[in-house]
Amino acid sequence: MVNFKGLDACDSFTSLKKTSRIRLHDLVTPARLANWWIPHAAELSYCYAFAPVDDLIVERLQALADEQQLIEKYRMLAEGAIMNTGEGRMVLHHLARGRLGAPVIWKGQDMEIFYRDEKLRFYEFAEKVRDGRIRSSADKPFAQVVQIGIGGSDLGPRAASLALSRWAIVKERAKLTPWFISNVDPDDGDYVLSRIDLSESLFVLVSKSGTTQETLANEMLVRERLKAVGLNPDKHIVAVTSKSSPLAGNPHYLDSFFIDDFIGGRYSTSSAVGGVIISIAYGPETFEEFLQGAHGADTLALEPSLKHNPVLMDAMIGVYERNVLGWPATAVLPYAEPLSRFPAHLQQLDMESNGKSVSRAGQPLSYSTGPVVFGEPGTNGQHSFYQLLHQGTDIVPLQFIGFLKNQLSSDMSSEGSSSRQKLVSNLVAQMMAFALGKEDENPNKAFPGGRPSTLLVGEELGPRQLGALFSHFENKVMFQGFTWNINSFDQEGVQLGKVLAKKALGAISKGDSSGDVRLDALIAAVYENTRRRDRADR
Amino acid sequence: MVNFKGLDACDSFTSLKKTSRIRLHDLVTPARLANWWIPHAAELSYCYAFAPVDDLIVERLQALADEQQLIEKYRMLAEGAIMNTGEGRMVLHHLARGRLGAPVIWKGQDMEIFYRDEKLRFYEFAEKVRDGRIRSSADKPFAQVVQIGIGGSDLGPRAASLALSRWAIVKERAKLTPWFISNVDPDDGDYVLSRIDLSESLFVLVSKSGTTQETLANEMLVRERLKAVGLNPDKHIVAVTSKSSPLAGNPHYLDSFFIDDFIGGRYSTSSAVGGVIISIAYGPETFEEFLQGAHGADTLALEPSLKHNPVLMDAMIGVYERNVLGWPATAVLPYAEPLSRFPAHLQQLDMESNGKSVSRAGQPLSYSTGPVVFGEPGTNGQHSFYQLLHQGTDIVPLQFIGFLKNQLSSDMSSEGSSSRQKLVSNLVAQMMAFALGKEDENPNKAFPGGRPSTLLVGEELGPRQLGALFSHFENKVMFQGFTWNINSFDQEGVQLGKVLAKKALGAISKGDSSGDVRLDALIAAVYENTRRRDRADR
Repeated sequence: MVNFKGLDACDSFTSLKKTSRIRLHDLVTPARLANWWIPHAAELSYCYAFAPVDDLIVERLQALADEQQLIEKYRMLAEGAIMNTGEGRMVLHHLARGRLGAPVIWKGQDMEIFYRDEKLRFYEFAEKVRDGRIRSSADKPFAQVVQIGIGGSDLGPRAASLALSRWAIVKERAKLTPWFISNVDPDDGDYVLSRIDLSESLFVLVSKSGTTQETLANEMLVRERLKAVGLNPDKHIVAVTSKSSPLAGNPHYLDSFFIDDFIGGRYSTSSAVGGVIISIAYGPETFEEFLQGAHGADTLALEPSLKHNPVLMDAMIGVYERNVLGWPATAVLPYAEPLSRFPAHLQQLDMESNGKSVSRAGQPLSYSTGPVVFGEPGTNGQHSFYQLLHQGTDIVPLQFIGFLKNQLSSDMSSEGSSSRQKLVSNLVAQMMAFALGKEDENPNKAFPGGRPSTLLVGEELGPRQLGALFSHFENKVMFQGFTWNINSFDQEGVQLGKVLAKKALGAISKGDSSGDVRLDALIAAVYENTRRRDRADR
Repeated sequence: MVNFKGLDACDSFTSLKKTSRIRLHDLVTPARLANWWIPHAAELSYCYAFAPVDDLIVERLQALADEQQLIEKYRMLAEGAIMNTGEGRMVLHHLARGRLGAPVIWKGQDMEIFYRDEKLRFYEFAEKVRDGRIRSSADKPFAQVVQIGIGGSDLGPRAASLALSRWAIVKERAKLTPWFISNVDPDDGDYVLSRIDLSESLFVLVSKSGTTQETLANEMLVRERLKAVGLNPDKHIVAVTSKSSPLAGNPHYLDSFFIDDFIGGRYSTSSAVGGVIISIAYGPETFEEFLQGAHGADTLALEPSLKHNPVLMDAMIGVYERNVLGWPATAVLPYAEPLSRFPAHLQQLDMESNGKSVSRAGQPLSYSTGPVVFGEPGTNGQHSFYQLLHQGTDIVPLQFIGFLKNQLSSDMSSEGSSSRQKLVSNLVAQMMAFALGKEDENPNKAFPGGRPSTLLVGEELGPRQLGALFSHFENKVMFQGFTWNINSFDQEGVQLGKVLAKKALGAISKGDSSGDVRLDALIAAVYENTRRRDRADR
């Protein structure tokens, strides 16, 4: 019987809090560096030698994972239990890449087959675009594919597209160039549209509800621009939406591919939300390999032992850092330029999922939940915010990611080493420096160390590895959400802003009152202060 | 007489800590929304109606600013005092945009004239590139300008170039397209080079010392690629460096423009580091306007009264949030797509400057210094990490930035309002929602509010406004550094990683021992784990 209870009700958490804090400087031996590794999916490996844990802490983290029944809850989720409690929904993004247990049947439909059929439909569409059977209204083959979406319809697909853009060139799978328009600021869409030839551009409009304000405003912009140069917008746009949306089966789109309420935006890269653009740009086989990598990592995550389950280990180390050590932020540092926007995806994934203050049953919590997540690629970050990470007054635990080979085949040797060797050297050097520090007579040049990290490393980054990385962090967030007894799958915190923005928009566009004296006062002050300054100074 | 002492030695800080925390819900009245504004430079305005302060707290923050002699210290710095104590250097980035006090003479040289002369030299060079008098080795006019640099030689110039790319098109000043290569990962440079025509590409190599590992590796890559297509690299690269660097006056460069040790990387956008590429891409007059905007904000920052000095107010509110309220992170949220990389610049500026644990005299501190800084443009962030900001267990104070007009002139109306009106509506709605929250019977749909913010707003974003924004945050960081009695101008925390990376690189490239058993063990484990997995699974 599965039991849902708070972290503060767990005996194992009480025991965990009684453990002594470790000192990395003493703990990290050559033997630990050689052995504190766990094989991951897609030939990745996970290293936790620099995590702030010892055997006893790992044992108690295992007890906590067991007491909170993390694997049982994961199985429930995978088999269609209503884990998104607030919204009364199943959570099925795993199923988009493969089944992990019993079939999930909903209203007589096998959901695995639903996702697979949609996938096969967009694979076929993608092939037709790629070989020129589907052409633009100017009768040209499409050369650009532009996703219009925001949040989860943008961040994950964008991070994945960037991650594979070089790889796809080398493998000769890059056919259409992917672009993204997300912000309601017209300077986003207008700029992208100024850089592409509209007569050979296909747009993928992504909105589950078909009512997302930003996405519809950008669609309007695109349609006007297409019309202005004599093109037929209906022949340039494909929709990704739910079956009940106004975009579904609408003759104003080339086609529509379906998603549903059981895959949340930030978990949707594995669905048509990410699949359509990746299949069109880099080929269905590339997206299929991404799904295989993710499914492999999903399967590995069912393993109950921390020491054989890298994502469970990673999740529990994060809980220890957050709830015992009390650290409020964590940084993601990919030593791989193709992952330049992966931290932005993880920021949404983690902060939108676990930035919650009430339990899944709606009770206020007495403990901290999701941390602030940020990051930039290495070595760039070394020349930016690493100063604070090394010598600041707060400790920020670090998640390194790295690969031993680059994607584009060329590399230059300078001063006896390749650029890639320089990159990997920097990665290992930073892990050492953060953990072990360095004494110095001059306190300004001393490094306290004791700043922990973990590492996900592979030989090279291709679609299978990328799929495994997406799965890793989705499942980490899920396990942490279970540990905190929260619902990681809703986002009620975005609603109030939408309601107030609607009121404000009425007031701004019509010059009316919003019905809220304070909102009216703020709007008036914003316009008054910018106008007054304008008059005075020009 | 100026006195340097710790925050914990300030009587005014003791008084400040005794103030009661305010409750924004009650404090924010229409009158406060109308009046808690301060005019800024370049027709910007600063609103602090949603800051977590009341009249008494502002009064005590003023006392703290006075006791720590912030304006006096700023004047000292501007007039050439050795404020970078650890490195024994002056701090002169303000002087690159104009003089704020007595002339700064160093070794008989008026430093204002030094910076101005270099500026006039690169203005002339830029004009020659722009009108085709300086041409590529294929005798073509240059159409692309690619900056090779990392850290401060990348983040600020990149953020500024992006911020003005649309504006420069509309104003017909966009002549060459700017690009950036920074990461030592060859997938960065190779990808940029694959997207441009080398025969019409000019490179700006930026390294103060002329020895930055990443930058030299990327230069090597660029030179090889140029040679491979029959071009003469010496006719395609210009250097920005110090006079003592190996790049200075070197015949292998078209020209060299000089910077010096008195302008730190993260403060260097106003120097040749940002000026060369911006002048070439968008014209010297555009860079000159940027400098004017920054100088205007620098001048305003000399005002001793918080209520008339927006940057001093902003800095002191940040100190209150960090040292009295105890908040460890802050988010920067520009509601302007052109500022998409401005948060990454601020992340370096703030975290590298103030992520310190010792005083300017080298004594350990008993209080917190610089926070974690992160951010993404709105409305995109609303669909990402705002969930945690609204309903997470921690409070993150917010810095909003917004403009009432877009840069590209066009905007679409949909459903009775323009995209820009939608953007501004979202901005004001979020400020209200964060501060005031909303009660709800369902705790999952309740918003606690009490989440403070400040706003920098203007009519439109051009070079003068951008210069003022750069200055605002540089001076904010400086004032906070003075308050904490730290040296905001060195970065000793990046040194250890460099030393260890050199050792690691020797070991990796030659197969030797690094001389450190733990580093050797880590390197061996990284290669062993990736190779072993490779063999097993393929």
